[in-house]
Amino acid sequence: MPSADYPAPIRDLIAQFKSLPGLGPRSAERLVLWLMGRGARHVPELSAALTHLEERIVECPQCGFFREKDAPCIFCDNPRRNQKLLCIVETAADVLKLERSGAYTGLYHVLGGKLSPLDNITPADLRISSAVQRAQDLHAEEVIIALGSDVEGEATANYVADLLRSTGIKITRLAQGMPAGGGLEHVDELTLHQALSGRRTI
Amino acid sequence: MPSADYPAPIRDLIAQFKSLPGLGPRSAERLVLWLMGRGARHVPELSAALTHLEERIVECPQCGFFREKDAPCIFCDNPRRNQKLLCIVETAADVLKLERSGAYTGLYHVLGGKLSPLDNITPADLRISSAVQRAQDLHAEEVIIALGSDVEGEATANYVADLLRSTGIKITRLAQGMPAGGGLEHVDELTLHQALSGRRTI
Repeated sequence: MPSADYPAPIRDLIAQFKSLPGLGPRSAERLVLWLMGRGARHVPELSAALTHLEERIVECPQCGFFREKDAPCIFCDNPRRNQKLLCIVETAADVLKLERSGAYTGLYHVLGGKLSPLDNITPADLRISSAVQRAQDLHAEEVIIALGSDVEGEATANYVADLLRSTGIKITRLAQGMPAGGGLEHVDELTLHQALSGRRTI
Repeated sequence: MPSADYPAPIRDLIAQFKSLPGLGPRSAERLVLWLMGRGARHVPELSAALTHLEERIVECPQCGFFREKDAPCIFCDNPRRNQKLLCIVETAADVLKLERSGAYTGLYHVLGGKLSPLDNITPADLRISSAVQRAQDLHAEEVIIALGSDVEGEATANYVADLLRSTGIKITRLAQGMPAGGGLEHVDELTLHQALSGRRTI
């Protein structure tokens, strides 16, 4: 007798969930069984939400953040934003993080990732050339490079900065140092080194 | 300026994912951003798989395992299964686990959960009375109660066994003891106690 298995539609959905980042085979199976039982009401809602995502959301061609089709971009089309300030970030989630900090009122440019030769991500895969073009079109006074300080983030920041250098626009990057509310004991040596060398008079 | 956020269709899908078991707010957001970018091709596939689940899968009214609509049940409608043996399990996943063990060729009955007063799960919420009815209709020679050995599993097993007792059918439960391939050092005291008291002559 061949080993029994779930009917094909269940196997398909398990395979679909398994291919998503952060979900393993066990949690995918548990999730589908839950959707077949106590979570049944979530099935049509989840399916509809996925369809809406596909039908209604586009990337703003200028900044790369998301907007609803036919709706203005909440950043690029907002005259109250400082049009002379451009902040380059890796992802749309980074945009929201900066917004929630309340410290920034300029425009954004989402690269869509960072350079990573190991993952075959080259400058052509990111919105890098359009970032330089945009800074020029805006006659920006300053471009803030707000990328992560991991190896790929640093490499991407350097690459973007090199391209921007010829435009003569002021280029800055986020300060590195102690996180708010953290003591010395929670900080690694490199961060401490950068916090020391970037120390400010008070 | 009010804090910026994602457009509604993105927020909706994040909320949907967040409500699934095993997915937190962070992983739900990361998942949706991935679906908006590198995982875009998964959106229609996932949506279709969810729709298929809803349209094509039903529970077998007899055993409670899943089958495709208009398809026979791979257990109940299979004459090569031993029709005199009924195994009561908690979930459909348990059915497959027992199948993969290769040690069982009888019929199944999925309860759909276990009794849990804290979660408001009473006998009426489970397929318990139909299990008793089914054992009688089959003129079963033996009913194997294959529930977990946690508190709720034990309580459910006792409840089902009490109901079955009046039918005069032989009732058995899975042996408890040492897991295969594990040494004494990996086994808790209760398991060791049960393995000792259930010891067999070799």
